[in-house]
Amino acid sequence: MNTLNHRITLAERPVGEITEDCFARDDAEVPSPGPGEFLVEVTWLSIDPTIRGWMAYDTYLPAIKIGAPIRSAGLGTIIESNNDAYPVGATVFGLTGWQEYAVLGGGMQIVPEGVSPEAALSIFGVTGLTAYFGLLDIGDAEAGDTVLISGAAGATGSTVGQIAKIKGCRVVGLAGSSEKCAWLTDDLGFDAAINYKTENVKHAIRETCPDGVDVFFDNVGGDILQAAISNLALRGRVVLCGAIAQYNDDASRPGPNNLQMLITHRGRMEGFVVLDYMDRAGEAIADLGRWVSEGKMTYRTDVVDGLDNAPEALDRLFTGANMGKVMVRF
Amino acid sequence: MNTLNHRITLAERPVGEITEDCFARDDAEVPSPGPGEFLVEVTWLSIDPTIRGWMAYDTYLPAIKIGAPIRSAGLGTIIESNNDAYPVGATVFGLTGWQEYAVLGGGMQIVPEGVSPEAALSIFGVTGLTAYFGLLDIGDAEAGDTVLISGAAGATGSTVGQIAKIKGCRVVGLAGSSEKCAWLTDDLGFDAAINYKTENVKHAIRETCPDGVDVFFDNVGGDILQAAISNLALRGRVVLCGAIAQYNDDASRPGPNNLQMLITHRGRMEGFVVLDYMDRAGEAIADLGRWVSEGKMTYRTDVVDGLDNAPEALDRLFTGANMGKVMVRF
Repeated sequence: MNTLNHRITLAERPVGEITEDCFARDDAEVPSPGPGEFLVEVTWLSIDPTIRGWMAYDTYLPAIKIGAPIRSAGLGTIIESNNDAYPVGATVFGLTGWQEYAVLGGGMQIVPEGVSPEAALSIFGVTGLTAYFGLLDIGDAEAGDTVLISGAAGATGSTVGQIAKIKGCRVVGLAGSSEKCAWLTDDLGFDAAINYKTENVKHAIRETCPDGVDVFFDNVGGDILQAAISNLALRGRVVLCGAIAQYNDDASRPGPNNLQMLITHRGRMEGFVVLDYMDRAGEAIADLGRWVSEGKMTYRTDVVDGLDNAPEALDRLFTGANMGKVMVRF
Repeated sequence: MNTLNHRITLAERPVGEITEDCFARDDAEVPSPGPGEFLVEVTWLSIDPTIRGWMAYDTYLPAIKIGAPIRSAGLGTIIESNNDAYPVGATVFGLTGWQEYAVLGGGMQIVPEGVSPEAALSIFGVTGLTAYFGLLDIGDAEAGDTVLISGAAGATGSTVGQIAKIKGCRVVGLAGSSEKCAWLTDDLGFDAAINYKTENVKHAIRETCPDGVDVFFDNVGGDILQAAISNLALRGRVVLCGAIAQYNDDASRPGPNNLQMLITHRGRMEGFVVLDYMDRAGEAIADLGRWVSEGKMTYRTDVVDGLDNAPEALDRLFTGANMGKVMVRF
């Protein structure tokens, strides 16, 4: 064990795009766990779009304080413990922050033996739970529904699509390159894919979803949201999972101009935060684990090495460079 | 009985504001009821914002055909019948259209004796049912909730507010004049009213709804919708009932730029059409009738005389001239 805790902290709040100036690196002392606490040696980080929001302003959690480590999910091993529920040697997953050592008091999930860090951080982590509860609980997707997904080649989107196929839905994905689109249809079994950079999105949705969109799982927001609303089926549901196209905007862009469609089509648009579902995680993990072991579901990871490269890993989400769940290993 | 059926028909679809050119007047023959049909002598019309949509384009019902009578709810007396469920002499309410005589095959509600035409067309008609199911079924309003209403001095809005007060909610209304605002607080018991023409709406909502808005019942859309979303409480619901501010726009205006709030606040926005609730009308009418007879609820009517003045009555909705339910008597 080192005596120093290398950390990446918040130096400045981002305005527009995230830049290196937002981050500082330091070496603090390794903290000691107090009563009921435990010390985790962090070895993996989960890189999620929501980190951008936490850096900038209060969201469903207060904004990260200037000077504090970047808030982030991560995975590591307990190396000291004053808490019987969290024994030394256990692998745990939860909000560790961008640092080598974290003192925590609870709120972590113990990762079962045999589950790899990659699986724990993707399919069984925030990504898998977001996809599962967003599609099935908020979106009420059922067999026969047409499910449209934006950011479909991303970690969450690709998981949503596979769950929807398992549930008997027709699945169409929006992605930003022909390579990503081919992966969706050829490898993941999507019924169709739309390259939003080269196609007229509104017309392409109409063509690929001739009976309208029953569930739109939106990871992106912006113009794509408007195009999807235009094609909503009667009683269609819009699941607002993220709005990554807008996270980096300084001034807010106008929203969809066709919300009247929600009246005429009896539509519902609903946002959610996966943290609210943590008490039901077991339910999702049981299903996801079975599907993975049966070979019905796959996932990709996009692993970046080294804690110091976490800002670059985060950037990959916003440039669309990633294909699969972005994580950092150190 | 006349031998001619005076009618107002659709001459042109409106683009932007509704003008007299949209309407034509004619005198057709009084139609005869076929097997299973009945003939209604129409004496009242219900004037609702949705008529604007029906004139312009397909909505939840197909657009009115050019040359056909303007589609509209109305009330009248059955004067000939080949349908045992609809006897001669009964007063009925339903989609009669803007005409003196209508042949119908069903789908009408029989108005109980003792209920005035004014009550049948407002509190027990589309207005009352829209308010009741929108607030309680779509909005899930419960005691202790803060309920914000746009178009609050309108027929639907003023009913929503009174139901919300009966249910134990804190109620704030938005209206377009100080006279309307005074009516809401002094006569209807609203906790606060905001004059959207003279006040900073976003700040005024924050001041009058310090714990955030649990239910926003939106009759208006546009900037007011955006301001309400900014003040949504955790798990707040936005009931999209109408978007009267936008009905007359030719080019669609941008929508709310803050839909991300629905994610961070786990918000839900849902549209509905009251026609879907017609099979549950009895439920609403029982409650509304009791509240009216107990003196807990009141309603205003804005009666225009003469079928030929129906276009002018419709115009009153869009200029905001009305205070209460607009109807035509002839």
